[in-house]
Amino acid sequence: MRAAVMRGRKLVVDDVPAPEPGPGEVLVKTLACGICGSDLHALKHADKLVDAAERTGGAFYMDLERDVVFGHEFSAEIVDHGVGARKELKVGTRVCSMPVILRPDGIATVGYSNDNPGGYGEYMRLAEMLLLEVPNGLSSEHAALTEPMAVGLHAVEKARLERHDVPLVVGCGPVGLAVIAALKLRKAAPIVAADFSARRRELALAMGADVVVDPSASSPYKSWRDVAAWPNPEEAPPLPPWMPGPALRPQVVFECVGIPGVIEQVLGAAEPAARIIVVGVCMERDSFEPMVGINKELNVQFVLAYTPAEFAETLEHIAEGRIPVAPLVTGKVGVEGVAGAFADLASPDHHAKILVEPWR
Amino acid sequence: MRAAVMRGRKLVVDDVPAPEPGPGEVLVKTLACGICGSDLHALKHADKLVDAAERTGGAFYMDLERDVVFGHEFSAEIVDHGVGARKELKVGTRVCSMPVILRPDGIATVGYSNDNPGGYGEYMRLAEMLLLEVPNGLSSEHAALTEPMAVGLHAVEKARLERHDVPLVVGCGPVGLAVIAALKLRKAAPIVAADFSARRRELALAMGADVVVDPSASSPYKSWRDVAAWPNPEEAPPLPPWMPGPALRPQVVFECVGIPGVIEQVLGAAEPAARIIVVGVCMERDSFEPMVGINKELNVQFVLAYTPAEFAETLEHIAEGRIPVAPLVTGKVGVEGVAGAFADLASPDHHAKILVEPWR
Repeated sequence: MRAAVMRGRKLVVDDVPAPEPGPGEVLVKTLACGICGSDLHALKHADKLVDAAERTGGAFYMDLERDVVFGHEFSAEIVDHGVGARKELKVGTRVCSMPVILRPDGIATVGYSNDNPGGYGEYMRLAEMLLLEVPNGLSSEHAALTEPMAVGLHAVEKARLERHDVPLVVGCGPVGLAVIAALKLRKAAPIVAADFSARRRELALAMGADVVVDPSASSPYKSWRDVAAWPNPEEAPPLPPWMPGPALRPQVVFECVGIPGVIEQVLGAAEPAARIIVVGVCMERDSFEPMVGINKELNVQFVLAYTPAEFAETLEHIAEGRIPVAPLVTGKVGVEGVAGAFADLASPDHHAKILVEPWR
Repeated sequence: MRAAVMRGRKLVVDDVPAPEPGPGEVLVKTLACGICGSDLHALKHADKLVDAAERTGGAFYMDLERDVVFGHEFSAEIVDHGVGARKELKVGTRVCSMPVILRPDGIATVGYSNDNPGGYGEYMRLAEMLLLEVPNGLSSEHAALTEPMAVGLHAVEKARLERHDVPLVVGCGPVGLAVIAALKLRKAAPIVAADFSARRRELALAMGADVVVDPSASSPYKSWRDVAAWPNPEEAPPLPPWMPGPALRPQVVFECVGIPGVIEQVLGAAEPAARIIVVGVCMERDSFEPMVGINKELNVQFVLAYTPAEFAETLEHIAEGRIPVAPLVTGKVGVEGVAGAFADLASPDHHAKILVEPWR
């Protein structure tokens, strides 16, 4: 099959063997597959990704001397069933799936794997028990956005929002936009969002942000403070005596950038007692000052992916129009266009999500 | 008055002016004052402490060109009342207090301050409204342990323990021992505690630890896993599919060491979904790998000090024998002995808490 392949730390287009569906698995034809910031990172920092996965029990193990076909944000169509499949969904059914295969010897990823090619190729194998049928009327393009939108939903779930929390989303790439959509869905308000790119700030508004800020023009943290006063100051819980300043509503910062230095910047600028949700995936070593966290009693929650329930819920939200994904699709390419799309995505002013359509 | 003074980044003994109690304040004679690890840090890293305080709104501002009298873990006796004092507690009453003074222009610390000498000197001024009478029958020595024990109580409160959580206390200096005492009080079990020092492991057992580990002989994380199985595996919540390994009870790690590298070590060794409570006060820059936190969805809660309610509660627990502090007092010195005590405390095998008695 035709695929965009990571080979020798570069992206090339080539014919590679199509996967065979094992027991309880299905063979699918990729309909659309989003290019994720993690794929850009993974190409650039493949060694670090593999090293961190080995040390932490992460599932992203790859042999970098062998081919890897990326792509974990996909919709697809069932082409064949492996042995022992229950065939509740027939050949021709359009499906989404979490990009993992459950096997007796553990879990394998689809897309960050030598053996399970992802959606940058024409065919994939998926676990039958994880398939979700794409609801009638939902386009394959929009269904492919289930995975990145589920990341936002999960991050917001892990933030355990309370009624008066005021979120600040730092970075409005696809991850930040997914967080904004989930915050809107959970009725958090006001939602403050920051990005250097005018295009991304526009998208943030389209996804439900109430206030957008260009950090090169003014401080996102100042904008946050401007809208975070208690409507009724009597509702404010008493501040510990060592925490100065006016009593503002609780701050929840979503770090959606994922490059070194940003976590430290957020720790430094966050309000006392803020909760910081690290959604951006920084694959490099980073530094911080514990005293800054200590003086403000900050809480840092690292998050990854989503639960199966959150994934299924997200597909439903998209199908019902409760998560507006149409503005996010800013480009489409065939496998020949993947390397170019990676280059385009490095400059954030033009794109949110580029979809790969390997059948093109 | 006689005092041990930080002058030119060194400890010297000298006569310095006794403080005058302002409006709503009292003058007290120091009865006993613990030497805190933070004082050792503050002497060594005074510039960093002041710099971090300035940047984060911390209250620990000091002019390092001027004298500072440390000491924030004290019991004392009322000597005089300032103007406007309500005098509910009479001259001669023994008291404890949080080491802060509340003033119209904000909060000032006692002990990390040029203007409010701490308990390494014969006299202090304190805020009348923060005074707590030492209950009859409680020794002044033991009352002086209220402050460090309150740090443990607060850390455990911030950990929001749930019924099945199994704590691991990393470091059994005074902070770790205070955490163990608070965990015992909150009926957490089993309590696993690790320290390189045999003396400190003994103290950990005296404070209520169930399992103690010498990290030079075996892994504390392994010892934790050995005791963290669900008594009834059916009670275990389902694991997300990407989190490998057997379902263990939730892990809460208390980082009570406070030197660079330990937070990263804990992040690396912690179980998936662990909560890490940073109680140790690391005043230096530190580094970590975000991917490690992300792959395991770790949560990091930085904590500082205690609330006024927790402080008062701690004094009562000590007075009622619910927090056993007697084993912690391993030495007593006059102001002339403070510099030597600082040196002794650098080698953890001999001491837990050394008390300064400036009246000696």
